[in-house]
Amino acid sequence: MPFAVADAAARRGRRVILFGIKGWADRQRITAYQHHWASYGQFGWFCRIARAEGCRDVVFVGSLVRPSLRQLRPDFTTIRLLPRIVQMFRGGDDHLLSGVASIFEEYGFHLIGAHEIAPEILMPAGPLGRHRPSSRDQSDIETGLALLKSISSFDIGQAAIVADGRVLAVEAAEGTDHMLSRVAQLRQSGRIRDRTGRGVLVKAAKQGQDRRVDLPSIGPQTIEGVARAGLVGIAVSAASAVVAEPDQIIAAADREKLFVVGVGEPRGQNDA
Amino acid sequence: MPFAVADAAARRGRRVILFGIKGWADRQRITAYQHHWASYGQFGWFCRIARAEGCRDVVFVGSLVRPSLRQLRPDFTTIRLLPRIVQMFRGGDDHLLSGVASIFEEYGFHLIGAHEIAPEILMPAGPLGRHRPSSRDQSDIETGLALLKSISSFDIGQAAIVADGRVLAVEAAEGTDHMLSRVAQLRQSGRIRDRTGRGVLVKAAKQGQDRRVDLPSIGPQTIEGVARAGLVGIAVSAASAVVAEPDQIIAAADREKLFVVGVGEPRGQNDA
Repeated sequence: MPFAVADAAARRGRRVILFGIKGWADRQRITAYQHHWASYGQFGWFCRIARAEGCRDVVFVGSLVRPSLRQLRPDFTTIRLLPRIVQMFRGGDDHLLSGVASIFEEYGFHLIGAHEIAPEILMPAGPLGRHRPSSRDQSDIETGLALLKSISSFDIGQAAIVADGRVLAVEAAEGTDHMLSRVAQLRQSGRIRDRTGRGVLVKAAKQGQDRRVDLPSIGPQTIEGVARAGLVGIAVSAASAVVAEPDQIIAAADREKLFVVGVGEPRGQNDA
Repeated sequence: MPFAVADAAARRGRRVILFGIKGWADRQRITAYQHHWASYGQFGWFCRIARAEGCRDVVFVGSLVRPSLRQLRPDFTTIRLLPRIVQMFRGGDDHLLSGVASIFEEYGFHLIGAHEIAPEILMPAGPLGRHRPSSRDQSDIETGLALLKSISSFDIGQAAIVADGRVLAVEAAEGTDHMLSRVAQLRQSGRIRDRTGRGVLVKAAKQGQDRRVDLPSIGPQTIEGVARAGLVGIAVSAASAVVAEPDQIIAAADREKLFVVGVGEPRGQNDA
């Protein structure tokens, strides 16, 4: 994903510098780009290097993994920000991310969304690949979207799984891949006994979600997870979710006979 | 739990016959009671035996585990009901349970709730045991209750876990014990990095839930799960949840330094 965004920005004539987070970013693939290695907590260092490189716009890519406060190796700038950072850690991901975003802005960087710099990474409306949702799937999709909408003010709820009108799983701190594994396990243990080949993973952006710092995303591993969970497809809110590696997604979905469809948000949902 | 209800009914002078579901009911403890062994799908058999025993009122106790349709060993009466049963299996648990309840009623039984026959099993308002929620815990409890309320129309949402304002987990098909294990695992794997000793399990009855067939419940294993998940306590909607084995719960909560508190539902929540 970060590399797809970097490529898209480069195609538009931007000079791109990657700041990989140690322990998270792909050590192999990043070598193809101009890059620096960063650690959580080295914000003063980041400001110096980014300014020296002439960076003006900053794009956050990738899902946030909350480091523990103990894992931070704060430099002087970060130490001065610690009271605010501690506050940011209390509450949901949006709260944390928008706090981080405003700090970057205060230090003179312009935060832009990956979707702004690389709109081609966004989920289009309609199906990707060969398969289509049935009318039963469509009704599960609507249930899922309505559910996600009703919990979106709680700063969770980017994904849920609905099968035959029954909500099997709701995502909170565990993330989508964990939720899919859970449904696979619940089927194996017999706690979910619905037939496989039913049920939809529904993903949507949170209401009021700051798209610059956090967009729902799907990748080829999402397709594998959906297949293992015995579901029949994926519905993703169009234009407000990121599709990493669309060619691999389409190939995997066709192979597993799953649909992947970009859908409208339910009426009344207004994203930031 | 079934035995506590049976004892309470017997104390009120009722004659009690237990119908244990094979594979689910406790084979040891049931022997202390007059009982029959039942299988999923033997509804005609049940009607004959229950009438022969002079049973008039039926109480469902214990959480519903959905058998697969293939596991049913339907007798003739059940076969005639199969089209309705198949319909009932589509959708959430309330849908299934209220369908089962109406079948029992049509066949001349009077379905009553465990809480009606044994009100002493209900969670009282206020704390059980020695410990009390802090004001921070109180705010997590309110977040949890509001979340559960907002999803209660989706026929899920009897429990959620909130820590420091962040929703860590929402229960759907997996059940409360599974959800608690998940949070314990997410802590171990580092995906949840909040300090242990924060966070509350919140359980509430669904809006419009048919209390005759399904009440949220906590037991000693809930306390153990909450302790393993690193949480600080449990809030349960008072008067609409069942406390199995309260003495053991209180002892376990005191030992683990957890609070267990019966709380009001948020305004506007009307239960059936």
